[in-house]
Amino acid sequence: MAEIPQGFWDGEHRMLARLISLVEDSLPGKEDVLRKLHPHTGQAYILGLTGSPGAGKSSLVDSVVREIRKRNQTVGVIAVDPSSPFSGGAFLGDRIRMNEHAMDDGVFVRSMATRGSLGGLAKTTKEAVKVMDAFGVDWVIIETVGVGQSELDIMYIADTTVVVLTPGAGDSIQSMKAGIMEIADIFAINKCDMPGTDTLILEVNLMLDMQDDHIKWRPPVKPTSNLNKGEGIAELLEAIEVHRNYLNEKGLFSERRRERTKSETLDIVNHQWQELVREEVERPGRVHDLLEKVAEREVDPYTASESIINWVIEDLKKV
Amino acid sequence: MAEIPQGFWDGEHRMLARLISLVEDSLPGKEDVLRKLHPHTGQAYILGLTGSPGAGKSSLVDSVVREIRKRNQTVGVIAVDPSSPFSGGAFLGDRIRMNEHAMDDGVFVRSMATRGSLGGLAKTTKEAVKVMDAFGVDWVIIETVGVGQSELDIMYIADTTVVVLTPGAGDSIQSMKAGIMEIADIFAINKCDMPGTDTLILEVNLMLDMQDDHIKWRPPVKPTSNLNKGEGIAELLEAIEVHRNYLNEKGLFSERRRERTKSETLDIVNHQWQELVREEVERPGRVHDLLEKVAEREVDPYTASESIINWVIEDLKKV
Repeated sequence: MAEIPQGFWDGEHRMLARLISLVEDSLPGKEDVLRKLHPHTGQAYILGLTGSPGAGKSSLVDSVVREIRKRNQTVGVIAVDPSSPFSGGAFLGDRIRMNEHAMDDGVFVRSMATRGSLGGLAKTTKEAVKVMDAFGVDWVIIETVGVGQSELDIMYIADTTVVVLTPGAGDSIQSMKAGIMEIADIFAINKCDMPGTDTLILEVNLMLDMQDDHIKWRPPVKPTSNLNKGEGIAELLEAIEVHRNYLNEKGLFSERRRERTKSETLDIVNHQWQELVREEVERPGRVHDLLEKVAEREVDPYTASESIINWVIEDLKKV
Repeated sequence: MAEIPQGFWDGEHRMLARLISLVEDSLPGKEDVLRKLHPHTGQAYILGLTGSPGAGKSSLVDSVVREIRKRNQTVGVIAVDPSSPFSGGAFLGDRIRMNEHAMDDGVFVRSMATRGSLGGLAKTTKEAVKVMDAFGVDWVIIETVGVGQSELDIMYIADTTVVVLTPGAGDSIQSMKAGIMEIADIFAINKCDMPGTDTLILEVNLMLDMQDDHIKWRPPVKPTSNLNKGEGIAELLEAIEVHRNYLNEKGLFSERRRERTKSETLDIVNHQWQELVREEVERPGRVHDLLEKVAEREVDPYTASESIINWVIEDLKKV
């Protein structure tokens, strides 16, 4: 793809979908597309929303989208779904979910399945966020099941991260996943119509009390419900705006963007290096042969590694 | 550390613990230690055991350890615990768990917490397995919550992977995590005294029927219970031995070891490369300066990446 299709800049959802697919499937031209989109990124506000399976994240995202649309802002949603069942659950999910937003030009929903992208989910998700960002949406919402490292990794690109908990779902302090609590900027106590809500709010606040001296931003704890067209949703979005202002006032918003762009660049450096190594490994030659010797336990992996680095660099110089 | 302490070769648990800590905390000399241990690895049989939180994995591991000890074989256990609560849950876990094995020289238990090693959990776990392997145990059991990519990644080093399911815990086909089913060599239906066991066994078998033409090894489905000193545990270990024989007969055991050693070597190549880049980034100089320009959005990350690779290589040549 030499140029970004004009339809993309004109706001055609079909073109947005096509570019995301190109990125997701690592089709030829992917890197060129990302390079061209880059100057147009950095404008969207990135909202992360994570929680255990069954916490009602999808419905909560729907409610938040509805609230954002009330304010006449546009939104892209990326639902990362590592728990999709065998045959392309995420794809099906795209169709079933967000029915009410299906005819709305201001909402674009995309699901990312773990299948086929094992190990690359975080990378692909970040790239999809960039495509949506360049497309010009005001918000990008990333929804993940916040369990594995990869999902946590995805959350590091969010400007504001909402951790969704539900009463009675074993989401007590004891069962809270390490790492997931640290990334919370806001807690949403979802299904707040259920018993145990007050206790859970109390527990989370107690936990925050214990940490209070370590942190500058105290995450607010907001009860929400998706019943009756959404209870507490406007308040949740308000809390998000407060956090956004906090980031702006402290200069953290631009600082984080800077750091993120740097670490993205280093990710690309490492990815390109790995591609170089992979080419050497797949091609007959000394790197390939040395790896066979390692497999035969004639050479140890650490000694081999030093030779491989030197050889890849040497061969790179010849080109 | 110039030499591996003699106590390690003499089977002192204290020395094993010390070397694992050295690896886990990335202390100086770590790479040298791993290099020296490498020729002594590759003998232990690596058993992976994974399943949802609450599936009774820990108790099942205890039961399996007991069964292995009955056969006079030795075992190292690595419990990867990403769900440990705030203050070093995994460490505490070490002490509480495996009480009955505490005085047994043939059992060594180690917990790995996610905290502090985010992104490096899989790497550290694999290295700890190597240390235990070199120590001379007959078995290494890795126990993880099988949800994130990192945990799946850990499982790829197991010779036999047991996926633990429980009746009535939402562990139905619908909720089964993508990826986790594919890595199962054996299914353990744990807490088989609970209602719903027969249905779950039926469901798993139905699912396996659907896939049957794709796979050569049909994972057996074994009911287990940790009540009454372990029901079905001998049968589970028997199934593991059958799978082990299958791997040996098909030449898959040595083939997998070969592939694993190769991919480990490439991981080391990439890790060493990343260290080189990191040094350049942290030091004042053109790589550092270029990253600042990327942060200012004056240069795009893809163009910058090419320069950085070239510069790191150039500077490497000068040394």
